[in-house]
Amino acid sequence: MELTVVGSVAIDNVQTPLEKRENILGGSATFASYAASFFTPVQMVGVVGEDWLPEHTKIFQEHNIDTEGIEIEKGGKTFRWSGKYLDNMNDRETLDTQLNVLGNFKPKLPESYCRTKYLFLGNGAPSTGLKAIDQVRDVELIVADTMDLWINIAREELDKLISRINGLVLNDSEAKQLTGEINTLTAGRKLLDRGLKFVVVKKGEHGAIFLSRDGLYVVPAFPTEKVIDPTGAGDSFAGAMFGYIVSQNGKLDEKTIKNALVYGTLIASFCVEGFSLESLQKVDIAAIESRLSQFRKVASF
Amino acid sequence: MELTVVGSVAIDNVQTPLEKRENILGGSATFASYAASFFTPVQMVGVVGEDWLPEHTKIFQEHNIDTEGIEIEKGGKTFRWSGKYLDNMNDRETLDTQLNVLGNFKPKLPESYCRTKYLFLGNGAPSTGLKAIDQVRDVELIVADTMDLWINIAREELDKLISRINGLVLNDSEAKQLTGEINTLTAGRKLLDRGLKFVVVKKGEHGAIFLSRDGLYVVPAFPTEKVIDPTGAGDSFAGAMFGYIVSQNGKLDEKTIKNALVYGTLIASFCVEGFSLESLQKVDIAAIESRLSQFRKVASF
Repeated sequence: MELTVVGSVAIDNVQTPLEKRENILGGSATFASYAASFFTPVQMVGVVGEDWLPEHTKIFQEHNIDTEGIEIEKGGKTFRWSGKYLDNMNDRETLDTQLNVLGNFKPKLPESYCRTKYLFLGNGAPSTGLKAIDQVRDVELIVADTMDLWINIAREELDKLISRINGLVLNDSEAKQLTGEINTLTAGRKLLDRGLKFVVVKKGEHGAIFLSRDGLYVVPAFPTEKVIDPTGAGDSFAGAMFGYIVSQNGKLDEKTIKNALVYGTLIASFCVEGFSLESLQKVDIAAIESRLSQFRKVASF
Repeated sequence: MELTVVGSVAIDNVQTPLEKRENILGGSATFASYAASFFTPVQMVGVVGEDWLPEHTKIFQEHNIDTEGIEIEKGGKTFRWSGKYLDNMNDRETLDTQLNVLGNFKPKLPESYCRTKYLFLGNGAPSTGLKAIDQVRDVELIVADTMDLWINIAREELDKLISRINGLVLNDSEAKQLTGEINTLTAGRKLLDRGLKFVVVKKGEHGAIFLSRDGLYVVPAFPTEKVIDPTGAGDSFAGAMFGYIVSQNGKLDEKTIKNALVYGTLIASFCVEGFSLESLQKVDIAAIESRLSQFRKVASF
């Protein structure tokens, strides 16, 4: 079953305390699509500029991702983000943002994508997500990932988006900010009250919490000492989680949700072990299953 | 098998955003002893003043705790701590500390305690812990809990203490501070290199990590919306964890450690649901086992 992913495609410059890398592939759709495609075929929707390289398209196509939805805007430049991770590797500063073609991004879903049953809206302007939702006719489950920027500058559109989706993925601090609650669970329940089927609160190195009307599940992060570049970890977690749910035909029973959270955690743990998609590109099903056994030993009881 | 617990006994004033409570029972030995005594008989060592109430002693005695080691210092006043929790219920400010009899605390273990096989040093001055260690003759496992205060003001004695114990329990930020590392696991491993059998890193609402030379286990916190007073949660976690290990004759195999972490987490989750020992006093084995089933459903996979 195909999952359609809409979000940003970026060229990043990333600086960590140990290393600096320029012109590497990034963006929410990039990480979420790649992560989801370990579990289910993906249809990717985004916009890039004329500086886009065929090699980039190839990376997706060779990993179960249909790229017909990646629009190359003539005369435009791809969205660029430059960021710097501080010593603790958790906090980061944005050094520069050049929206370029993303500034005016109106997602156009190829006709065949409009019948998708599953839609994932990677982190991006809520208005972009709304435009994508308007184009899908047979959708059964829409999940969106968001971030604090949109709570601060596009609150009204974000609220509208939340009213049209089924699952929301967001950070701990964002859930609290969005609801004015200090307790993560209370914040999550308040978000559920807006008509969502489920809310997933991401806590970075501390794992994640899944909340639905009749379910509550927590998963710790896979403990790792090898954190090379955290960029895309949240997108990868969300993409893999939803990709797994789609591979189970959108079921939301206990077993599917727990597996989805665990696979999301594992794919995110691979993601941070390299810049851009570098580490994920080396991962295969055997590596995922081997890490799953390790994780069971470490965290299941 | 008895566990001997040495630490502070306090009279606390606690203020939360919702409520203020005065003259309530507190201190590291209080919480750790009570928590451990759900699993194994405890011998408690501490000092109090003439303001100490027989009711307080009774609370311990009725819960499998031998109080022969609680010294009542004539003419003295019990250690008093006043603190205020901020809106997020995680950060707190100390409003007032009156060391009183704790200022000159030299733990004297009753003769029968000196043959203890298991010693827990609740958070307190490292010099106090060292004095207790000097008195035990047949000890097999010593575990100490510490906090940032001692890293800041008694580093040399803390280092000495670490060289004489087998297990160290401390907060995430303290592990990082003590080792200069930014990654929790790396910090834990560096502490292991000092000759410890194991290190347990507490992460509050995010759970805990257990590290030994051949084991790595993580446990999330039991998710709860009902946080009345976090005081003593860390002490309760550590006390229950070690109490369970003692109940299994000090075994440190995978199953025992995982159970110990899980029971520590559950007892801490009860602790925060009331002021002082109030919530823990209502807990029985059935309540613990029922919460264990809930926790398995929520967090095991």
